[in-house]
Amino acid sequence: MNITYETLWVDLEHIRADEPLIHNITNYVVMNSTANALLAVGASPIMAHALEEVADIARHTKALVINIGTLSSQWIDSMHVAMKAAADAGVPIVFDPVGVGATEYRTDTALSLLGCVKPSVIRGNAAEIKALTREQAEIKGVDSREDSESARAAAKILSREYNCVVCVSGRKDLVVSPHEAASICNGHQMMTRVTGLGCTASALVGAFVAVNPHHFQAAAHAMAIMGIAGEIAAEHCDGPASLQLRFIDLLYSLTQRDIKEHLKVEQY
Amino acid sequence: MNITYETLWVDLEHIRADEPLIHNITNYVVMNSTANALLAVGASPIMAHALEEVADIARHTKALVINIGTLSSQWIDSMHVAMKAAADAGVPIVFDPVGVGATEYRTDTALSLLGCVKPSVIRGNAAEIKALTREQAEIKGVDSREDSESARAAAKILSREYNCVVCVSGRKDLVVSPHEAASICNGHQMMTRVTGLGCTASALVGAFVAVNPHHFQAAAHAMAIMGIAGEIAAEHCDGPASLQLRFIDLLYSLTQRDIKEHLKVEQY
Amino acid sequence: MNITYETLWVDLEHIRADEPLIHNITNYVVMNSTANALLAVGASPIMAHALEEVADIARHTKALVINIGTLSSQWIDSMHVAMKAAADAGVPIVFDPVGVGATEYRTDTALSLLGCVKPSVIRGNAAEIKALTREQAEIKGVDSREDSESARAAAKILSREYNCVVCVSGRKDLVVSPHEAASICNGHQMMTRVTGLGCTASALVGAFVAVNPHHFQAAAHAMAIMGIAGEIAAEHCDGPASLQLRFIDLLYSLTQRDIKEHLKVEQY
Repeated sequence: MNITYETLWVDLEHIRADEPLIHNITNYVVMNSTANALLAVGASPIMAHALEEVADIARHTKALVINIGTLSSQWIDSMHVAMKAAADAGVPIVFDPVGVGATEYRTDTALSLLGCVKPSVIRGNAAEIKALTREQAEIKGVDSREDSESARAAAKILSREYNCVVCVSGRKDLVVSPHEAASICNGHQMMTRVTGLGCTASALVGAFVAVNPHHFQAAAHAMAIMGIAGEIAAEHCDGPASLQLRFIDLLYSLTQRDIKEHLKVEQY
Repeated sequence: MNITYETLWVDLEHIRADEPLIHNITNYVVMNSTANALLAVGASPIMAHALEEVADIARHTKALVINIGTLSSQWIDSMHVAMKAAADAGVPIVFDPVGVGATEYRTDTALSLLGCVKPSVIRGNAAEIKALTREQAEIKGVDSREDSESARAAAKILSREYNCVVCVSGRKDLVVSPHEAASICNGHQMMTRVTGLGCTASALVGAFVAVNPHHFQAAAHAMAIMGIAGEIAAEHCDGPASLQLRFIDLLYSLTQRDIKEHLKVEQY
Repeated sequence: MNITYETLWVDLEHIRADEPLIHNITNYVVMNSTANALLAVGASPIMAHALEEVADIARHTKALVINIGTLSSQWIDSMHVAMKAAADAGVPIVFDPVGVGATEYRTDTALSLLGCVKPSVIRGNAAEIKALTREQAEIKGVDSREDSESARAAAKILSREYNCVVCVSGRKDLVVSPHEAASICNGHQMMTRVTGLGCTASALVGAFVAVNPHHFQAAAHAMAIMGIAGEIAAEHCDGPASLQLRFIDLLYSLTQRDIKEHLKVEQY
């Protein structure tokens, strides 16, 4: 499936027209910034985690994004219930294993969730993706960035194990499915100095899988939009707060021409 | 009761001089942005939800703002206790029924809270206000914006049922009490692309009822300040993040002249 | 121990080079903004509060920052466990008693935590520091700012009682150890109109004690960086949101010359 500026633009116009409702059970740190990113790109976010309502919400949305950044036991129960409800209703699920590998608790939780319901897309950094295959990796905070290439093999294994798309964020972003692979070569180093841009990537993957049933293509589009908005934002930028502000503004205003001029994708 | 640039300015000067302490039990998504909005307008926010302390805090503040955006059972208990303590101490309560109608859980919770303690002001979007009267409405995320006029009847019913002021946010903001009504025609479409500006409106209503015992007038002032700051912020704006930044700066710096030149209010 | 632009610069370069991992158990309001401040200054934040994992994380980080801004009982248990694990592993602890004095619950919680494990640094505003010695103080929200001088005696008492460094934020920032004292005279009045800059100060103290075993000097450096970035940010500033944005950008880009030109420190 091709990844071009034209296929990306089609999805982006769909999101802006349809304003798909995206259910997020995510961490406290990024709730505000990911909601704003979803709104800026044209989607409608809903953040809700109560056990009493997550199934109701999950089954009526266009995508569910699960992010384990600030775990606790009650939230894990809600994640299980929401994922089950989404899967039963055919709602695509994006899974972000934040900090997996940093503690056994996170790794066990992530594997337990994935063991119950297969997501459409898993998105993490190299350390997290490797940890999901129990491969050893250096953990350096949750915002760190190991070379994504180092997780290529792990991504392939995961994509086959769960029959899903796997995204590995890094200097290059890898997008892998059981039968396809692409690298997105957009983005900017300063993005690693803004908290939660990985989580934002996962939320945007949610917006794209909500409008595009070909999840490999959708995930690649989302990673590309992240990178393009980030690298344009980084031009003439004074620091990470300016970058974050311009990044959100650009999600709102990106044109087909911006995408055409910046998209750098390699497919295998 | 008149709503003019002069009456609004009197309240704003009171807030800036008195720095009223506003207790917020609100959702995770907007805690930071609403605290910043309250500080920018001149008030002093306190965010606290522990059952062990909410009564102590609520009864010593100038207003209590209850927002059910990210519910869970323990928080509901705290909301009940805080509302009861505030009511007993004569502290005005602002109630924001975020997402009511999206799930039975939210609707039941909101009606249960309102059934125990009557607030001074209820503020929501059209779908939420209609849901509180069990009227059918299309739910589209928590940041959505149905035409506020469609909820005029529901607002009137609610204002009589709870003997309170009801604000309906939308392209026009309606402010209704059992005996009065006004429309605020400020604001800008791009404000719907910033998460939590509805919640910010509720927080600002808290700041205004803290200094003005005429709650209909106070609520209208708060909605007007929101709209005026939002529409000035939207001029020459690059996107929703720029808008949010300028909006907060304007809450801090708005002059009597800004208000005089922009205020568009209709009273019935 | 001297506090000069050169000693500060050495620490800042260490943080930027080493990217020390800082574990934060902090309040919901500031999780995003303090994570961004830590990233901007060069550190690696991790926010985690689950009882099941806090000990694992705390003992593998370079500093632990405990902030009681939005307390609840489960979090208090996690704070106890994390502080114990950090202390056992020799990881320095920064303690921020947000809102202590506002309720008995907060005061009791803070004293209970301090009674179990002695932190390396306690940082609060004057009202909070006085409340920790059970001295009477006027409570005015959590972002308020009483004159720091009024808490000098309390800070001295605390520093001896816990054999730690005590920082009192205010127009002047006091930094006190059992045997040393300094005042940092940087900062800007508008910083009190941005939520959570006190919490950011505590987080930055975490970054500095992570690289500098002389905690009095490290804490003074952190307070100075806060004040210098804040006062440069406030120049030509339109309001508190602009200030916050430029503040974060400056944490990222501050040069040795910026520090040399602005640092105003008095030592006793």
